[in-house]
Amino acid sequence: MSLSSTPELAIAVCQSGGLGSLGCGETELGKVRAEALQVRAGTNRPFNLNFFVHPAPRADPAVFSASRERLAPWYDKFGLGNPADAKTDGRAGFDAAKLALLLDLRPPVVSFHFGVPDDQAIASLKAAGVKLISSASTVAEAVELERRGMDAIIAQGWEAGGHRGSHRPTAPWEGVGTMALVPQVANAVKVPVIAAGGVGDGRGIAAAFALGASGVQMGTAFLSCPEAATDTVRRKLLRMARDTDTIVTDSISGRSARCRRSRHAEAMETTRKPLPDFPMMYDLTYPIISAGFDEEASFHIYGQIAALNRELPATELMGRLVEEAVAVFATLSRGRPDPMPPPA
Amino acid sequence: MSLSSTPELAIAVCQSGGLGSLGCGETELGKVRAEALQVRAGTNRPFNLNFFVHPAPRADPAVFSASRERLAPWYDKFGLGNPADAKTDGRAGFDAAKLALLLDLRPPVVSFHFGVPDDQAIASLKAAGVKLISSASTVAEAVELERRGMDAIIAQGWEAGGHRGSHRPTAPWEGVGTMALVPQVANAVKVPVIAAGGVGDGRGIAAAFALGASGVQMGTAFLSCPEAATDTVRRKLLRMARDTDTIVTDSISGRSARCRRSRHAEAMETTRKPLPDFPMMYDLTYPIISAGFDEEASFHIYGQIAALNRELPATELMGRLVEEAVAVFATLSRGRPDPMPPPA
Repeated sequence: MSLSSTPELAIAVCQSGGLGSLGCGETELGKVRAEALQVRAGTNRPFNLNFFVHPAPRADPAVFSASRERLAPWYDKFGLGNPADAKTDGRAGFDAAKLALLLDLRPPVVSFHFGVPDDQAIASLKAAGVKLISSASTVAEAVELERRGMDAIIAQGWEAGGHRGSHRPTAPWEGVGTMALVPQVANAVKVPVIAAGGVGDGRGIAAAFALGASGVQMGTAFLSCPEAATDTVRRKLLRMARDTDTIVTDSISGRSARCRRSRHAEAMETTRKPLPDFPMMYDLTYPIISAGFDEEASFHIYGQIAALNRELPATELMGRLVEEAVAVFATLSRGRPDPMPPPA
Repeated sequence: MSLSSTPELAIAVCQSGGLGSLGCGETELGKVRAEALQVRAGTNRPFNLNFFVHPAPRADPAVFSASRERLAPWYDKFGLGNPADAKTDGRAGFDAAKLALLLDLRPPVVSFHFGVPDDQAIASLKAAGVKLISSASTVAEAVELERRGMDAIIAQGWEAGGHRGSHRPTAPWEGVGTMALVPQVANAVKVPVIAAGGVGDGRGIAAAFALGASGVQMGTAFLSCPEAATDTVRRKLLRMARDTDTIVTDSISGRSARCRRSRHAEAMETTRKPLPDFPMMYDLTYPIISAGFDEEASFHIYGQIAALNRELPATELMGRLVEEAVAVFATLSRGRPDPMPPPA
């Protein structure tokens, strides 16, 4: 939900019984502070701040230059001039300044994406009373997160919109579906598992609990809420969304992410070549994305359940989700209809 | 379950309350007849015969020749001589001979993969009292299957082992996860939906029902049963299986299928080039697969839940699956633990 969350959305979710979150992965620190204080002022319920954790990108001039050349036709098409030069300084995902801010703010919960920070950072956050969560896209990652002291683990399946939380960059064709991932993660760790990816309504919530999750993380479903920072173009696309709209590509940022299929993304997948490290690839794609909010050039981020989205205020959506999940639980408890025909 | 099913497995599943199936997609007709008669003699419960439905492959000498050249190093490595020439005759998936056999056998259920045969074939099978099922990997395919008269629709998610049932050849990075696919298909059609892909134990069965399915299709889970025609190498690999073992590739057969990751498969994905139509690509890969049952060369077929497999006789496995699903239903009906904290 980086660039899509707002304090208003987080507050509404918290007030409705959920753990409202701010996606801070691409947010400037002053804004993180201001938004976190706004959420704290708006609710006395726990809330979560989410950060990207990734090493500083390596500079590989040949790879960067080759990617510049590949994108040049898009720059020409939109009259954007020359693609930017490589910038690697100060690009690590979770640094001392972010840690200091969190130790000052002491939010109830912090979640990480792409892995976790170093042991010292983890220890200092835990000592400050902050509950910690991180995402696993595989069983091995979940086991590692438990070992590193996470209080809960998000099992992020293939269906999820946005960046895959894999702890190392992965190829776009790598991914374990939520249905397969959640029970295997639940078997492998003792801490609570939060299912993410493909949860669009109460049916998905009930299914996640059936698979062994103790909670769900939903992003795409909230993109259509009026409180979300979803731009007009993406709201329109979400209204027309279908199950097959999206693909996983690393050509937005340098790491695999699920977004709306575009000619740009498909061309990059059909001919795969090494790309600059995350987040340097962004430097090359941002101008194209900004110039071409269209089906050819764009990378609108959402997941595979977007077609189930409802344009409701977040509080109302939360109420519906709970009602739906409880209704599915009740239906299943009646044996619905008969889980298997009786043996012969 | 083509090449993995046996009459013994189908009979055991039928006798335990499931719909036992024979995968006939790559089976010679005389053997289909013999095995179907064996199942009929072994159970008075309904059973299913599954067929591949695909057009005859096009001959594209340039593509075939390029693929031969790509595979030449593997042929050299295993001392296999020269790769075969292209054969296109008699390679359509569902022909008059197969239809005639089915109209003679009149099995209770027939299921199709990759689409459905022509309207006349469908009408004659239905007139003969055969119930028809086919697989959809997208909502659009499900809607088309309902329009074509299918009595039930398999919603096959990304997690499933073996060939993706897509009605047209798809790129390996295309796929909707079971968690996202099942509720969207259930919304779109009136006929019963059978969830496939990622269902490994009773938790998966319960989740499938929560998502709106009326049944599940399980393949991988039964590969470890003694009754399955699973070779010794694959049984050993299944014992060591992990969630991330498999990838989707079209380099086995010319159509996307999920199988165990191998250097061969990864090399073909890293550099993607046009491949001969299904099933002609098989002609080039079969000798390599047969010669090299190892991690480099092989394409052992199974899905993402293989790590949940249990080496149990099919009857015992069926009993456990039902018990587990019923236990999950009961747990959920108790509100487990509280699906959401109460609103503030």
